[in-house]
Amino acid sequence: MEQNAVYEEVMDLCRRAKAHSARLAGARAEVKNRALCLFANFLRENASVILQANARDLSNAAENGVRDTMLDRLRLTEARIEGMAKGVEDIAALPDPVGKGECWTRPNGLAIRRVRVPMGVVGVIFEARPNVAADVAALCIKSGNAVVLRGGKEAIESNRAITALARRALAQSGLAAEAVQLIENTTRASSEALMQMRGCIDVLVPRGGKGLIRAVVDNARVPVIETGAGNCHLYVHSAADLTKALRIAVNAKISRPSVCNACETILVDAEVASEFLPMLKKAMDENHCEIRGCERTREILPNVVSATEEDWETEYNDLIIAVKVVSSVEDAVSHINRYNTGHSESIVTNDLSAAEYFQSAVDAAAVYVNASTRFTDGGEFGFGAELGISTQKLHARGPMGLTALTTEKYLVTGDGQVR
Amino acid sequence: MEQNAVYEEVMDLCRRAKAHSARLAGARAEVKNRALCLFANFLRENASVILQANARDLSNAAENGVRDTMLDRLRLTEARIEGMAKGVEDIAALPDPVGKGECWTRPNGLAIRRVRVPMGVVGVIFEARPNVAADVAALCIKSGNAVVLRGGKEAIESNRAITALARRALAQSGLAAEAVQLIENTTRASSEALMQMRGCIDVLVPRGGKGLIRAVVDNARVPVIETGAGNCHLYVHSAADLTKALRIAVNAKISRPSVCNACETILVDAEVASEFLPMLKKAMDENHCEIRGCERTREILPNVVSATEEDWETEYNDLIIAVKVVSSVEDAVSHINRYNTGHSESIVTNDLSAAEYFQSAVDAAAVYVNASTRFTDGGEFGFGAELGISTQKLHARGPMGLTALTTEKYLVTGDGQVR
Repeated sequence: MEQNAVYEEVMDLCRRAKAHSARLAGARAEVKNRALCLFANFLRENASVILQANARDLSNAAENGVRDTMLDRLRLTEARIEGMAKGVEDIAALPDPVGKGECWTRPNGLAIRRVRVPMGVVGVIFEARPNVAADVAALCIKSGNAVVLRGGKEAIESNRAITALARRALAQSGLAAEAVQLIENTTRASSEALMQMRGCIDVLVPRGGKGLIRAVVDNARVPVIETGAGNCHLYVHSAADLTKALRIAVNAKISRPSVCNACETILVDAEVASEFLPMLKKAMDENHCEIRGCERTREILPNVVSATEEDWETEYNDLIIAVKVVSSVEDAVSHINRYNTGHSESIVTNDLSAAEYFQSAVDAAAVYVNASTRFTDGGEFGFGAELGISTQKLHARGPMGLTALTTEKYLVTGDGQVR
Repeated sequence: MEQNAVYEEVMDLCRRAKAHSARLAGARAEVKNRALCLFANFLRENASVILQANARDLSNAAENGVRDTMLDRLRLTEARIEGMAKGVEDIAALPDPVGKGECWTRPNGLAIRRVRVPMGVVGVIFEARPNVAADVAALCIKSGNAVVLRGGKEAIESNRAITALARRALAQSGLAAEAVQLIENTTRASSEALMQMRGCIDVLVPRGGKGLIRAVVDNARVPVIETGAGNCHLYVHSAADLTKALRIAVNAKISRPSVCNACETILVDAEVASEFLPMLKKAMDENHCEIRGCERTREILPNVVSATEEDWETEYNDLIIAVKVVSSVEDAVSHINRYNTGHSESIVTNDLSAAEYFQSAVDAAAVYVNASTRFTDGGEFGFGAELGISTQKLHARGPMGLTALTTEKYLVTGDGQVR
C-alpha cells in the first residue's frame, strides 16, 4: 500500500513533466539560454539558502554515521556553488543540438528531413553529489528535455533548493517550471517506480555506483543508458617507451583514483616486466598505492600482495592497483575483453601493428595508444559538459554530450504522394 | 531443470557467436561482400532443399491448424527464394557502415577518431516469415556483426536450411560459420533465455507482433530496439485538398492493411467532416473496409459501427478503420500523442502553420504532410534494406538501415599525454 502511494506520487511527477515537455521541446535556443543564465544567477544570489539546506543535509548525514569521504562529496561551499553556476553558464554557451540534421529529396518528390529533436522526458537517478542536480537540469533544459530527478537521500535538502531555482528560472523565462521535477521521496520504492514509467520517461540514466546501475539494468522497463562503471586497464607492451609508460601509469592511477576513467589494472608484457615492474613499484610506493600482483609479478616484486580473481574484476576507486604479467598483445586483449566494463583502455607501445591490433580488438568506448585513460571526459574530448560516460553500445558510447539527450525524427513533406 | 537446459543451450550458442564475432567485426568489406554473394548463390542453388524444408513446415503447420493467412506468410516459392537471394545481393551492394567517422586533434596533441564499429552480437527474435532469416543474417554479416536468430516454431525447418547456407558461405569466405547461430529450440523458454544474455548479446531486436515486443521490453536485461508496432493516424485538416486526402486515406489503409505503416485511424476536422466523410465512406465501401466511427462521425454516417476506446488503441492490421471527428489541429495532435505507437503520422493540409505545428508537436518517428504513412520504409527513404522500423527514441528511430547495427568507438592516439 505504501509502495502504491510512492508509485502514484512518482507517476504524478512524471506525468507533469511529460505534460510540460512539449513547450520546452519547441523552445528556441535563445529562450532556453535565457533560462539557463537566470538559473546560474539564481544559484549565485541564493548561495546562502543553498548552503543552509546543505548544512541540514550534512548534519543529518553526520548523525547517520556517513563516512568522511561521502561527507566531502556532499559538502557545498561558496566556491562549489560558483562552480555550479559557471557550469550552467558553460552549458548555455554550447551550440543547441536540436534542429540539426540532413535533408534529401526522393525521386517521387517527397522531401525528407532527418532532424535532432529532444527525447522528451529524461529520468536521472544519482547519488550523493548535489552539483549533479544543477548540471543535469541544465543539460536537459539546454537539449529541450523535461527531467525527473531522483537524488540520494543524503542530499535531499540541497537538491530541493537547487531544483527550486531551476524551476523559477524556467517560469521566469516563459517556459514551464514543471519541466524540472524532483522526486522528494528517496526510498528504494521511488527509484523502482521511476524505472517502470513506460510512456512517461523516454530515457533513464543512472549516475552512480555499480549497485545502482545493476539495479536499474535488471529492473527498468524504460530505455536506459548505463554510465560510469570503469574497470580500466593500461597495457605496457614490449615495444613501449618505459619512461612514458611509467608517467602514464602514475597519471592513470594516481591523479584521481575515485573516478571512473582511473586505471585499475596494469598489464605488463613479459619481455619488459623485469625492467618495468621495479620502476612501477617505486613510483607506486611513493604515491602510497598498494600493488596486488599475479604470480609472475611476484617473481619480480616478491613483496607485493597476491592478486585474486576478484582483483581483476574490481574497480577499486582507491589507491590500489592490480598488476599482471602477460605474454603478448593478444593475451592483454583477451584479459581486457574478459574483465573490462567497456570504458577506457590504453596500450603504451611504439609498434604500429600492436597499436592497431589493440585499438581494433579491444571492446571499449575509448581505446588509447600512448596516453592516459584519464582523458575519457566530455571536456577533454572537446564536447563541453557531459551527462556521463556511457559504457553501453546502444545510442551513446563514451562521453555523452548534449546530442546524446536527443533523438531523431523524420519530417516528410509531399503534395499528395501515395505508394 | 528443463528450463535450465534450454538456458544453457542458448548461452552456448551466444558464447560461440561472441567468440567468433571479432573476426567478422574486423573483416574487410570485400570479404563480407564475397560471403554475401556466395550466400545468395547458395540460396538459388539449393532452392529445392529449402522448398523441401518449407514443405515440412507447411505440413506441420497445417496439422496444427495454423490459419491460412499465416500459412501464406510461411510459404516459400521459387520466386520468393529468388527474391531472398536478390535481397542478399542488394545488401552486399550497399556501402559498408563500418569504419566511417570523424576525427579531430585536441590542443594537447591527442588525435581522436570517432568511428562506427559493429555492435558485436545481435540477437533477433522473429515470427513466421522465413525470409527474415536470410535478410537479418545478411544485414548482420554486412555490418560485421555475429547474429543469434530465434525464429518461430512454424518456420524452424526453413530457417535451419537458410541459416545453414549462410554459415557455409561464411566458412567458404574465410570467415567464421559460427558467427551465424540459429536457436533450434523454439519454446518460450529459449526466447526468454536470449533476453537474459547480458555480456553476450549487444542488442536484441524483436520483430513481430505487440505481444512479442511487450514480452521483450518487460523481460529483457540486454539492450533492446523495439520495432514494428504501428498505430498510425491520418489527419484531414480543415484546409486539406479533399481529393488528395481521399487518395492518401485509401492508400494508407487499403494498399497493404497488414503492415505496420498502414493507417488505423482517420481524424477528420469538423469543418470538413460533412463533405469528406461521405467521400470516405464510399471509397471504404468499395474496398470492403469497415468504418468504426465516433459519435460525431455517426451523425454524418449513421450506418457505421460505433467506435469504442479500444478502437483508438488498436492496430487492426485488417480492413477496418476507426474514424474520429476532431475540432482542431491541437485536438488531432492530442489524440495522436495519446494513442499512437511512435511510428508514422500524417496531416493533409495546405495551411503552412498547421503543417509545421503538426510536424513539430506529434511525437513519432516519421511525421508526414500531404503524403501516405505507407512511405515509412528503408527502401522508400533511400536507405536500401532495413532491419525494421524502430518505434523507440534510443539509438535508432524510424527505418533502421545498416548504421543502426553499428555503434561508435573512440580511438585516441597520443605520444605520452597525461592529464
